[in-house]
Amino acid sequence: MDKYVYFFGNGTEGTEGDASMKETLGGKGANLAEMCRLGIPVPAGFTLKCEVCDLYTKNNNNWPEGLKEQVEANLKKLEESMGMTFGCSENPLLLSVRSGAAQSLPGMMDTVLNLGLNEKSLQGLIKRSGSTRFAYDSYRRFIQMFANVAMEVDHDKFEHVLEAVKEIKGVKVDSDLDADALQEVITGYLEVVKSTTGQEFPSDPMDQLTMSINAVLRSWNNDRCVRYREMNDIRGLVGTAVNVQAMVFGNLGETSGTGVCFTRNPSDGENLFYGEYLMNAQGEDVVAGIRTPNPISTLAETDKKAYDELVAIRTNLELHYKDMQDIEFTIQDGKLYILQTRNAKRTIFAWLRTCVEMVDEGLIDENTAITRMPAGEFNKLFAPVLDGGDIQSKGIKAVTEALNASPGGASGQVFFSADDAEEAAAQGKKVMLVRIETSPEDIGGMAVAQGILTARGGMTSHAAVVARGMGCPCVSGAADVKIDYNAKKMNINGVEIAEGDFISIDGFTGEVFGEAIQVKPSEIVQVLNGELKEADSLLATNYNKFMAMVDRKRTLLVRTNADTPKDTEMAVKFGAEGIGLCRTEHMFFEGNRIISMREMILAENTADRETALAKLLPMQREDFEGIFKALNGLPATVRLLDPPLHEFLPHGDAGANEVADTLGIDPEVVKQKVRALHEENPMLGFRGCRLSVCYPEILEMQVRAIIEAAINVEAAGTKAQPEIMIPLIGHKEELAILKAKALEVIEKVFSEKGTKVDYKIGTMIEVPRAAITADDVAEEAEFFSFGTNDLTQMTCGFSRDDSGSFLPTYVKSSIYEYDPFAVLDQDGVGKLMETAISLGRKTRPDIKLGICGEHGGEPKTVAFCHKIGLNYVSCSPYRVPVARLAAAQATI
Amino acid sequence: MDKYVYFFGNGTEGTEGDASMKETLGGKGANLAEMCRLGIPVPAGFTLKCEVCDLYTKNNNNWPEGLKEQVEANLKKLEESMGMTFGCSENPLLLSVRSGAAQSLPGMMDTVLNLGLNEKSLQGLIKRSGSTRFAYDSYRRFIQMFANVAMEVDHDKFEHVLEAVKEIKGVKVDSDLDADALQEVITGYLEVVKSTTGQEFPSDPMDQLTMSINAVLRSWNNDRCVRYREMNDIRGLVGTAVNVQAMVFGNLGETSGTGVCFTRNPSDGENLFYGEYLMNAQGEDVVAGIRTPNPISTLAETDKKAYDELVAIRTNLELHYKDMQDIEFTIQDGKLYILQTRNAKRTIFAWLRTCVEMVDEGLIDENTAITRMPAGEFNKLFAPVLDGGDIQSKGIKAVTEALNASPGGASGQVFFSADDAEEAAAQGKKVMLVRIETSPEDIGGMAVAQGILTARGGMTSHAAVVARGMGCPCVSGAADVKIDYNAKKMNINGVEIAEGDFISIDGFTGEVFGEAIQVKPSEIVQVLNGELKEADSLLATNYNKFMAMVDRKRTLLVRTNADTPKDTEMAVKFGAEGIGLCRTEHMFFEGNRIISMREMILAENTADRETALAKLLPMQREDFEGIFKALNGLPATVRLLDPPLHEFLPHGDAGANEVADTLGIDPEVVKQKVRALHEENPMLGFRGCRLSVCYPEILEMQVRAIIEAAINVEAAGTKAQPEIMIPLIGHKEELAILKAKALEVIEKVFSEKGTKVDYKIGTMIEVPRAAITADDVAEEAEFFSFGTNDLTQMTCGFSRDDSGSFLPTYVKSSIYEYDPFAVLDQDGVGKLMETAISLGRKTRPDIKLGICGEHGGEPKTVAFCHKIGLNYVSCSPYRVPVARLAAAQATI
Repeated sequence: MDKYVYFFGNGTEGTEGDASMKETLGGKGANLAEMCRLGIPVPAGFTLKCEVCDLYTKNNNNWPEGLKEQVEANLKKLEESMGMTFGCSENPLLLSVRSGAAQSLPGMMDTVLNLGLNEKSLQGLIKRSGSTRFAYDSYRRFIQMFANVAMEVDHDKFEHVLEAVKEIKGVKVDSDLDADALQEVITGYLEVVKSTTGQEFPSDPMDQLTMSINAVLRSWNNDRCVRYREMNDIRGLVGTAVNVQAMVFGNLGETSGTGVCFTRNPSDGENLFYGEYLMNAQGEDVVAGIRTPNPISTLAETDKKAYDELVAIRTNLELHYKDMQDIEFTIQDGKLYILQTRNAKRTIFAWLRTCVEMVDEGLIDENTAITRMPAGEFNKLFAPVLDGGDIQSKGIKAVTEALNASPGGASGQVFFSADDAEEAAAQGKKVMLVRIETSPEDIGGMAVAQGILTARGGMTSHAAVVARGMGCPCVSGAADVKIDYNAKKMNINGVEIAEGDFISIDGFTGEVFGEAIQVKPSEIVQVLNGELKEADSLLATNYNKFMAMVDRKRTLLVRTNADTPKDTEMAVKFGAEGIGLCRTEHMFFEGNRIISMREMILAENTADRETALAKLLPMQREDFEGIFKALNGLPATVRLLDPPLHEFLPHGDAGANEVADTLGIDPEVVKQKVRALHEENPMLGFRGCRLSVCYPEILEMQVRAIIEAAINVEAAGTKAQPEIMIPLIGHKEELAILKAKALEVIEKVFSEKGTKVDYKIGTMIEVPRAAITADDVAEEAEFFSFGTNDLTQMTCGFSRDDSGSFLPTYVKSSIYEYDPFAVLDQDGVGKLMETAISLGRKTRPDIKLGICGEHGGEPKTVAFCHKIGLNYVSCSPYRVPVARLAAAQATI
Repeated sequence: MDKYVYFFGNGTEGTEGDASMKETLGGKGANLAEMCRLGIPVPAGFTLKCEVCDLYTKNNNNWPEGLKEQVEANLKKLEESMGMTFGCSENPLLLSVRSGAAQSLPGMMDTVLNLGLNEKSLQGLIKRSGSTRFAYDSYRRFIQMFANVAMEVDHDKFEHVLEAVKEIKGVKVDSDLDADALQEVITGYLEVVKSTTGQEFPSDPMDQLTMSINAVLRSWNNDRCVRYREMNDIRGLVGTAVNVQAMVFGNLGETSGTGVCFTRNPSDGENLFYGEYLMNAQGEDVVAGIRTPNPISTLAETDKKAYDELVAIRTNLELHYKDMQDIEFTIQDGKLYILQTRNAKRTIFAWLRTCVEMVDEGLIDENTAITRMPAGEFNKLFAPVLDGGDIQSKGIKAVTEALNASPGGASGQVFFSADDAEEAAAQGKKVMLVRIETSPEDIGGMAVAQGILTARGGMTSHAAVVARGMGCPCVSGAADVKIDYNAKKMNINGVEIAEGDFISIDGFTGEVFGEAIQVKPSEIVQVLNGELKEADSLLATNYNKFMAMVDRKRTLLVRTNADTPKDTEMAVKFGAEGIGLCRTEHMFFEGNRIISMREMILAENTADRETALAKLLPMQREDFEGIFKALNGLPATVRLLDPPLHEFLPHGDAGANEVADTLGIDPEVVKQKVRALHEENPMLGFRGCRLSVCYPEILEMQVRAIIEAAINVEAAGTKAQPEIMIPLIGHKEELAILKAKALEVIEKVFSEKGTKVDYKIGTMIEVPRAAITADDVAEEAEFFSFGTNDLTQMTCGFSRDDSGSFLPTYVKSSIYEYDPFAVLDQDGVGKLMETAISLGRKTRPDIKLGICGEHGGEPKTVAFCHKIGLNYVSCSPYRVPVARLAAAQATI
């Protein structure tokens, strides 16, 4: 018989679970068991393991065989442990039934409290509490909660009864109802249940328990819960555990109370006991906001004993879990009970500070600090923030709060369409794009926006994904935001905001503000840029401490993808150890260069092409000089021209006429060329090394520019380490031919200049054929850099531009766990990389290996790259720190 | 010291080479050596091996070290063997210097005859021949030939001298010049050499020999020769050998003569001694056409002894080489010499007959017959032919002859542009497309043409490649065809042909005729179609005999790619053992179906889509019934819908309006859908199984149609073997999901119909990821069919539609040996196939494996498929016989 139910209580001997069993018992259940083992006062109970939920659902909402017996046996044990009896008229055991999955889904599932009350046990509760009113009120609440959760009776129906009684009795607030009045309410409630459901309210406590457990199990698949998991991208859970626990009451009078506390500050991580409580209250009162809770420090005055005990438990739990805890407690008649502990959620700022300080305190070692740091959130450290001082001084309150879809603070004027946003941005306005939801057509507006706010869509919606990709703050799924596109205005909880009005969003918290708020750059960025002293920023100090730990640990190097000296400088400040991908094509778009580039493309013979290329040479050389200088001796992998030539030509007649005018040629020639260069599948077309195979003079110019720049920079005293990367190689012979041409140019430049520099020649591995034949390719290549964007496109057969029509369905259907363009497809593309590595090393054991696709900054991919033995990953400048972190995590 | 020179002559003991050394000594050299070993009367000589040519070129036209000594030593041996002395005044040895590569390049390289003549040896020749005139004439010819070949003196200059002397002497034809006159001619010739080159004509025979050898070596890289290799796709040769041989003279009088003969008829293969000769003539006179040669049989009357000896040699050589020979001979003063033997070139008809008859005769075994059959030409057997009877009865002569680029006879009216051709074809005219050269824009016109004639372009030109692919007869590179596009006419050697005039071409021979000629289908096709009795066609009888040998040998099955019952029937007649690829999408274009298809695509929800699909169901079912019937129990792999949906929608406003009109919807809806379905890279877009993952109802309809059809056909008494193929699988999960859906439908149909049929479900392997993860995919797939078209596109990163801009350069640069879309890229794509096979078999040892890309009918690829262990190849109906042949060849 499978074991479905785990008891907790009665100290270590009596407790069957422990903290390690989170996947089995859910977070709450595992931690309740652990606390019992630690001797912390926890009301006893038992946990139905998560798998039960899955079995129940698959079995058409029936319990698996044996579960009933196990629940009964555990209930028996619980009665014995508490010295109380379920449903008894003397000292009745009351129960809470709560959900608790392996990951937290706050408030999404159902809970039943005060379970076990009926006419008989009610008498017992009166006796025990000494308060008829309390007992009746408990019963009333139970009926309402149970009937709603387990019997699907609308809340409203009960509210009507309550209102009616209040009217009859002439009272205004619930708490003024006396025991008799509550008696009438109870009678009314029971009638509501009967008339609505056609069934009597179950008086058998065992029926109540069964029905409550079922309600909690079913709530795993309620719309709200499913939607929450979708919105927060929570996957891979089998279901929720169910925790059945003896009730304790914080509302038995002024010697009772309840509260929530954190062992440290969850907002900034400061090591200070932090929390709130209310006396004579139940848990829901603390969060409901009707009464203002007291700061935890004042509990010392109210109930010194309980406070001291709580402080001791705080220490005990933190020492035990070696992490910051989020603790729920109840004081019943002066006795402290802990109802829950869990590792506290916290901001990335709190993560940084707690990790660093806990290492300093000796609580954890560096490995633990590194492992814990949420790599997926690490980039938030560098996002701009809303100025808290400004918010406080202006006394601004959020108008709504929704999903923190992309981190950072942003403030600006509202526009409701991408076109309007673009127009306003062009006029120099700071723009906030507000949409019901975004689609690919909004990209232009998103690109110019300071921040994005959407009324619909979760953490993986178009807006959220694109905003994160752009590093643009975004709050999504703000259901309270009612947009009227025609009137160009919106209403947020009563606040009217029209086009051009100012709003601010906090992408860290999901808060939306109806006014302008100042935005500050991240302190870390200010320090890296020398605009702020490290000593003046605790955040930057901790950041540097933490990154030092990270760098001590990691073996994988981190380079950057940068095409300009400016980007390169920033990346080096972020810790980049070289350039892994310098895309030369971007350089051709600037200023006059595009003219020469077009001249080159429109050339009708080699001589004309060479003339145009000669004009580009000094500009390219200057680019590379700037980059080599910015790198100050670090290596730079420079990729030769890659995109299809049509990308450099204008589309449309007006553009063609303009180009023809500039170059002084017949517009028909330009149009003809555009037509000739049109391709059905440009991704698989005339690009990459294929350009140089057909027009070697392009490669010759670029190689000359690189080598001349390196020589010039070295002459000025800075070491240059150019690595010439030939893209889109599919066949060894392509590389052999082009490498020979490159070597010819290099030797020529060396002899012209009378000096030499070090260099390497290698290739991108981005065509599957190159990966499969990497042993051959390695004969010519000194390094491989995996271009995982294209490699994914060709290996999986997905066009990145077009996959929007089916990839979301694929991810939803779990065909791919993640979008393979965001997280490397390890089983497919990754396997091909492993093949290429092992073949490449067979030919050239010391071949240098890196990755330069956009996956290079994605933590799961970085871990994979470490595992398969790459020398480095390369990513955009702002992702360098997270890549360093992920590289360190991968070693542990 | 490397051995560069090989002697032949003096029987077996004296001869250093043999027939097996073709690669080393060239075809001519190896066979001369072999004949010496056989005791056949061959003038002695020696061969400089082919590698010398390569070394000479690489070494800036200098001889490799040691060659001089070896030539001298062999010359010495030759003098001894012949009992004559080089340059001697008594009995001078004269030499011929001839080229001879491993493959025949007829007439492309230089030859020098009568070498060794100077004032001194001339006297010896006079003595030996007894004819001063003959000797002078030989000397004159030698000077002209040598100076032209080795000293680059124009022929014209010598002709002027000759004409001048003829004028002075008052004679009309060369042969009327007497010895004195020739003496003057010689003097004039020597002056021409001196004045043109500034050098004396070399009188030292050794200088003559060296310069002649050099001239032959250089001629390997002359324009004509390079162009010939390019045009005929001859690659991989290191160079030409040089054969230096003692001269014999067929023009020493009426007891001398020369001729060419074949051991069988090279045109139809009949076993009859065949050839021509002329007495008192040199070799060039036989082919020059000034004198009409005599049929070989008449030699028996002229010189019985020589004839008998020749007949004996014919038998001897054929028995020895076990193949039909092409023999050159010279009779000098009644003594027969054989100057060359080689395996005879012959038509595919002659190949078929000789192979079959030689097996019958016991000369060769079946394996040899199969191996010899040129698979690349085998398809010519099925091409239509010009009616020889018609040509003869009308007395038609060819107006020119060029490259036989694509086999078959064609006749029709000339059009000079693709547009004109299409228009004329639409009016029902039989069209011959004539172009200077073709480009991809001409495809439409090529598709409707009976035949194609181009003035430029070789065997691998656009016209040639496309025509072969279409099975359309083509003659290319016809330099004599002068086209005037503006006037819409052409001139071929003086014959004016205007648009609309009739011409005919013979794609077997390259002949072009200026008139209409009747075209007959291949006798084999007539017999297969039951229009002609096998007994009445020797060709068809031999074909069937040969294919029986082939089928006895091969283990690889051959299926066909067919989408209609008609194609299927034809393929089965050609020996197809099932359908390897039935593309269902073609079925959707016919008649009203396209309307329902468009309705389906334009549907806005599942219900509308299902309604449209329901209309397609009966049509699809009917298609499959027809195909299963035509297969008569053979298996059929049916591929579910594959292309992107936009292919079914019209492009352009007019088309959209028409569709909207037909379907009674807003044209804007159609246009919107066309825009929405537009893709940047449709090859990698929303197609294949991705359609069914998103719209499973498409798959459901198709699977239902297949299974219902199978049940219906079986109910009518014919076994059906449907194999459902899900295309474009990249991930096991895609297949798992779709297979589950298919199984659901199948079970439903089975239960509706109350009966079952056998079926299989499998996938195409065409996405690299599927190949890499074939072990996973095989968990779901009962068979793999390699879709090598797409697999090549994705593995190599080539778009088939766009690769024209660089692939020709790639093949020219030998990056790829062949166009990877024509001949499978074994090292890349093939390696991936091998990976997929080994992974697939690991999971499912009995997995069925096939190939259905267009490579499936290409002989080199078929051999590879046999080697890697596929169960079958699949190709278009007309390629089935050649695939069967290639499969048999692969086993040997």
